[in-house]
Amino acid sequence: MGDASPLADTGEVPYTAVIFTSVRRPAAASPEYAAAAARMDELAREQPGYLGIESAAGDGVGVTVSYWASPEAARAWKAVAEHAAVQVLGRERWYADYRVRIATVERDYGMHRATGRRAAG
Amino acid sequence: MGDASPLADTGEVPYTAVIFTSVRRPAAASPEYAAAAARMDELAREQPGYLGIESAAGDGVGVTVSYWASPEAARAWKAVAEHAAVQVLGRERWYADYRVRIATVERDYGMHRATGRRAAG
Repeated sequence: MGDASPLADTGEVPYTAVIFTSVRRPAAASPEYAAAAARMDELAREQPGYLGIESAAGDGVGVTVSYWASPEAARAWKAVAEHAAVQVLGRERWYADYRVRIATVERDYGMHRATGRRAAG
Repeated sequence: MGDASPLADTGEVPYTAVIFTSVRRPAAASPEYAAAAARMDELAREQPGYLGIESAAGDGVGVTVSYWASPEAARAWKAVAEHAAVQVLGRERWYADYRVRIATVERDYGMHRATGRRAAG
């Protein structure tokens, strides 16, 4: 946390978004899953190039977007050993299906800042 | 719907992701909001270049990612009149805050297809 808003302050474009969407098994409602997810959040925040995370889950579907200063920072996060271990657990126990999409954010705006932060194109 | 999975089959990269994250007011729990959201889903599916939507909401935070064949298709969707009207309602009534991020997806993979769909870099 450390930030009042659940929305991420990601700074100037361009930056990298990792979009993780999942179909959760009932086991993902366990305290074990919540603890692992909280630990992953904490670990992500310590990584170089971390910009923020936005996440929501309901009706068995989860959407989590993490933001990184560069594609290299996003890749490094994926490789973090503890994270990798949880990915294996996730595949076996918590998720019926998931997708990972790595994207470059080229424009962004918000409710309270309608202008700016807009790249060419 | 028309698709058994709540995850989107987005096809080959690159494509465009519009990441919409919001802090919802209590008014977003209304039937009016649910009806507008369902109508927007339906309308999006009719747009040229629509590839899919993935969405989750819980604890007052919503994350919705819509996928489009091109940045132009994503922009055209934003301009659709009825969609624009709902955006105004959203600002006034349903959201305490939101962010919109337009991104190009360059790599993707899933639980059941670990390889492929990978652009250079």
